[in-house]
Amino acid sequence: MSENWLNKVNWADNGLVPAIAQEAGSGKVLMVGWMNRDALRATMETGEAVYWSRSRKRLWRKGEESGHLQKVRSVRLDCDEDVLLLEVEQAGGIACHTGRHSCFYRRLEHGEWIEVEPVLKDPKDIYDK
Amino acid sequence: MSENWLNKVNWADNGLVPAIAQEAGSGKVLMVGWMNRDALRATMETGEAVYWSRSRKRLWRKGEESGHLQKVRSVRLDCDEDVLLLEVEQAGGIACHTGRHSCFYRRLEHGEWIEVEPVLKDPKDIYDK
Repeated sequence: MSENWLNKVNWADNGLVPAIAQEAGSGKVLMVGWMNRDALRATMETGEAVYWSRSRKRLWRKGEESGHLQKVRSVRLDCDEDVLLLEVEQAGGIACHTGRHSCFYRRLEHGEWIEVEPVLKDPKDIYDK
Repeated sequence: MSENWLNKVNWADNGLVPAIAQEAGSGKVLMVGWMNRDALRATMETGEAVYWSRSRKRLWRKGEESGHLQKVRSVRLDCDEDVLLLEVEQAGGIACHTGRHSCFYRRLEHGEWIEVEPVLKDPKDIYDK
């Protein structure tokens, strides 16, 4: 099958673009991961979000350890063709490795980053199974 | 005033982090810009989104030409401290330089990027004043 759609993405020199995961229904922005060609191809083939882990330097199926998979409903591309927007269903309602719904749990208030979202599940109970 | 909050951000080697602009109320993801320290500081000082333009290589107050300013209601930081999420009120209801509400106007369908959002205003009428 043609990969024109993958060529259309304006991959950065390191081969990556940011991919925003937004929750279907709530519209909440859950996290930002990074994707390369293989990650986006794998995401479309499996219907589940696959990112490129910059720390592990390998493809990383979101939730492969935690079970907090992301079912992908749609993928959008921005005008500069260098950012992806995924509409996802978040398994377990937890996207963040800290056990929170969203990774964006700190808000700037009077010059300080304040935690404004609760931990829904202790990370120890997510990862040490 | 202390700039601890700016030091807390995990700026990349090029000094930048992605900043997502999400519309207050609708929850729509409008665009992603890039910010450096000066951009984030200026955003907080003015209450309007200021990004770093990678093409122009200077600070860029969103809407400085188009009038499509973004009033910033809140700023969030993710768990890795390397992505910002802005809650904004979008002046004119147009974030994209193509005249659309959102920059994410193409959706992947059957291996093709399809335009799924209308042009609300001709870019010629936005920029050639």
